[in-house]
Amino acid sequence: MSPEEFRRQGHAVVDWIADYHSRVESFPVLSRVQPGEIRSQLPPGAPEQGEAFDQILGDIERVILPGITHWQSPNFYAYFPANASGPAILGDLVSSGLGVQGMLWSTSPACTELETHVLDWLVPMLGLPEKFLSTSSGGGVIQDTASSASLCALLAARERTTQFVSNRKGCDGRLVAYCSTQTHSSIEKAMKIAGMGSDDLRHIEVDKNFAMRPEALARHVERDIKAGLIPCFVCATVGTTSSNAIDPVREIARICRDHNLWLHVDSAMSGTAALCPEFRFINDGVEFADSYTFNPHKWMFTNFDCNCFYVADRKHLIQTLSILPEYLRNQGTESGAVIDYRDWHIQLGRRFRSLKLWFVIRYYGIEGLRHHIREHVRLAQQFVAWVRDDSRFELAAPAQLNLVCFRLRSGDHANQLLMDRLNRSGDLYLTHTKLDGKFTLRLCVGQTNTQARHVERAWQRIQQETGKLGNS
Amino acid sequence: MSPEEFRRQGHAVVDWIADYHSRVESFPVLSRVQPGEIRSQLPPGAPEQGEAFDQILGDIERVILPGITHWQSPNFYAYFPANASGPAILGDLVSSGLGVQGMLWSTSPACTELETHVLDWLVPMLGLPEKFLSTSSGGGVIQDTASSASLCALLAARERTTQFVSNRKGCDGRLVAYCSTQTHSSIEKAMKIAGMGSDDLRHIEVDKNFAMRPEALARHVERDIKAGLIPCFVCATVGTTSSNAIDPVREIARICRDHNLWLHVDSAMSGTAALCPEFRFINDGVEFADSYTFNPHKWMFTNFDCNCFYVADRKHLIQTLSILPEYLRNQGTESGAVIDYRDWHIQLGRRFRSLKLWFVIRYYGIEGLRHHIREHVRLAQQFVAWVRDDSRFELAAPAQLNLVCFRLRSGDHANQLLMDRLNRSGDLYLTHTKLDGKFTLRLCVGQTNTQARHVERAWQRIQQETGKLGNS
Repeated sequence: MSPEEFRRQGHAVVDWIADYHSRVESFPVLSRVQPGEIRSQLPPGAPEQGEAFDQILGDIERVILPGITHWQSPNFYAYFPANASGPAILGDLVSSGLGVQGMLWSTSPACTELETHVLDWLVPMLGLPEKFLSTSSGGGVIQDTASSASLCALLAARERTTQFVSNRKGCDGRLVAYCSTQTHSSIEKAMKIAGMGSDDLRHIEVDKNFAMRPEALARHVERDIKAGLIPCFVCATVGTTSSNAIDPVREIARICRDHNLWLHVDSAMSGTAALCPEFRFINDGVEFADSYTFNPHKWMFTNFDCNCFYVADRKHLIQTLSILPEYLRNQGTESGAVIDYRDWHIQLGRRFRSLKLWFVIRYYGIEGLRHHIREHVRLAQQFVAWVRDDSRFELAAPAQLNLVCFRLRSGDHANQLLMDRLNRSGDLYLTHTKLDGKFTLRLCVGQTNTQARHVERAWQRIQQETGKLGNS
Repeated sequence: MSPEEFRRQGHAVVDWIADYHSRVESFPVLSRVQPGEIRSQLPPGAPEQGEAFDQILGDIERVILPGITHWQSPNFYAYFPANASGPAILGDLVSSGLGVQGMLWSTSPACTELETHVLDWLVPMLGLPEKFLSTSSGGGVIQDTASSASLCALLAARERTTQFVSNRKGCDGRLVAYCSTQTHSSIEKAMKIAGMGSDDLRHIEVDKNFAMRPEALARHVERDIKAGLIPCFVCATVGTTSSNAIDPVREIARICRDHNLWLHVDSAMSGTAALCPEFRFINDGVEFADSYTFNPHKWMFTNFDCNCFYVADRKHLIQTLSILPEYLRNQGTESGAVIDYRDWHIQLGRRFRSLKLWFVIRYYGIEGLRHHIREHVRLAQQFVAWVRDDSRFELAAPAQLNLVCFRLRSGDHANQLLMDRLNRSGDLYLTHTKLDGKFTLRLCVGQTNTQARHVERAWQRIQQETGKLGNS
């Protein structure tokens, strides 16, 4: 494709995306296709001869669009959002257009240095501790997802604890890690991947607000030590996936210090809220963390994938993941004056992801980002008030930020039915969890373009369908 | 950013990329900046107020471009390429614009089904065994990089061997894996990550062509069994990073069958060559592999990141990596009629990466892809002939496809000097390895727009600088 054809077709794709965003509210949020329906429209084999670009783009509209669940709809309240924005999409486009692979500083110095710089910007923006700055002992890196970041944290903890012996000798079944019963499943997955075994992950009890009970953590750690095991790693969550619960990081940190455990803080969803001084209470105790992660691709208007991962002492991470075969040796690396991010994650190759984050931060400015976060929290709190005022419903957990967990008092079946009907209507999309053993609806306000009218309409539709349930 | 502003600024970004590709040959291929030079031009803190988009885009030209090593220059011969193309960039743009997160089938059925479909297309396109089809026992998935894919292969092997006990109990230090002395460093990294330990990775000796010696593999396996260890996994490489050596997969497979070892085939770079019947010899024996991986982001014109990973029996992979917390339960998953790709890799979240691969395959057609691959191989073979005809040089390894390993006969110092001078000139970029203990230059022809004139010019410049060396 010549640059001139790229220009022409690129304009067409940009126009298609602009139009898509203009009409995104007209689609059912949750795709209505049946399993296999999209595949059945695709030819069984690849074409021998090339096809016209117009035809390919036309198939996006014709074949792909019905199979899309519209994460960028302002009526998307499911899971946690993966919000995006114009500047992010265009920053990502520049990344694709440049096509650099930033495994080493030398394979594109700008790719490494912009990343370091933007991740340093975020430290004071979010009120994170200075030790996470690249100019201090630590530093930040962009990873794909919090799953990968947490795996890296666990590996660095494993190696720090075993004095880098596990890397060479393998695990010996004595290391133990801790999280709460509410911690994201990625920690259990990381335990399996790291060869530490899911049986050696302790799921610590939570209090009535679904936050980890530090005294229970201390008890488990001491019991494991007595049993001859080696406690190694704790994951504290600031904003759990089920209910946005906030673990007491400061108290957990004290236990970690007492026993020399690596403290990882997973703030994947909620971390962005710390942009606003009034929400910065979520960072209480984070100054004691060995590692910290949050996802700009969830709530900072930066399209998936973009996870930020910080460590307090970069040498543990690098020593854990470093590999230097001859074919990667180069003067930059040998000078010791540069960062080679390939030593900071699982993969070797890497995209120029900091561009999209840089575009977002500059386009909105810190004030612009705060404005959107505040509005999302305000709308969620408005929704909380509506739920409180309707005696058919109850709140299932404290809603401190932008996630509301609520349910009908009339039991699991009614809640499941309500959710299915709402989602089938296409008017909005929300998902569920279980809290206290009960089926609970989750409504998360976080899509970039969600406004008051969308949340008002969501509540109306919930009330309507609830009314019909009573008669069914 | 409103859809209308997105349209306007999107056109500007597309124009900038089209212009960039038009003038990419005018830049020094390897960036000339010094460590810290890019950062020093960036303001110390993020802006409080938003900035105009024009200004941000202007900084790409002013600040970022000098720090780019131009992977999309036709004069890029370093490492392995990460080649891109117009249709890939635009497919990726559609993915960013839709902004879906395809962790589950239900979170965008098209994201899952197009991926399954395109990966099924590739099986006959590349002459891979039918067991890799989703309609058979296996299936394919798009991952970010071959490092991640090989890690997943190793984990599935670990679990199959231990009957899924390691996932629960952790590793016990008895599992052993095998690769050659030439295998990519990602396998050693995977051994560390997986808790199996790098000491239990055997680097099997190679023959004069740098291919694994199967009799040496058999000897090591038998020795380990006698020592009470448990052989588990072999990585055979089709096209090693250093020299593009091809391990004898068929003979290795026989040893794997005898001892029930998982056979993983890493064809990250060379796999694409199998599009052409005349190069399909590289797949000899792949029909016995338990898993296979290659990178469309290296040589199939699909911008980074895009790795294809196939397994012969998907249940081992899924059982190894599956996690199902309540908040991810949904009707699609419970129907058993769909694929949830989150169980096929390390991460939970995932981009809609198949779009760019679909765009590339359709835009070029199989014939168009073959044309480019053949041309790259032809140009590399032409280069081989020139090296052979110049008595100052020697070939350091067989060049069967598009990588040429060569060196001056006058020793390491001269070769290092030659490479540094060529790279500093900005006219081309190549990197090195060590073969038989000697510093060796690598020239890989794989950038999408590399034509005869570029390779001719590269050889001219090599000869010129070599001439000057003689006088220095």
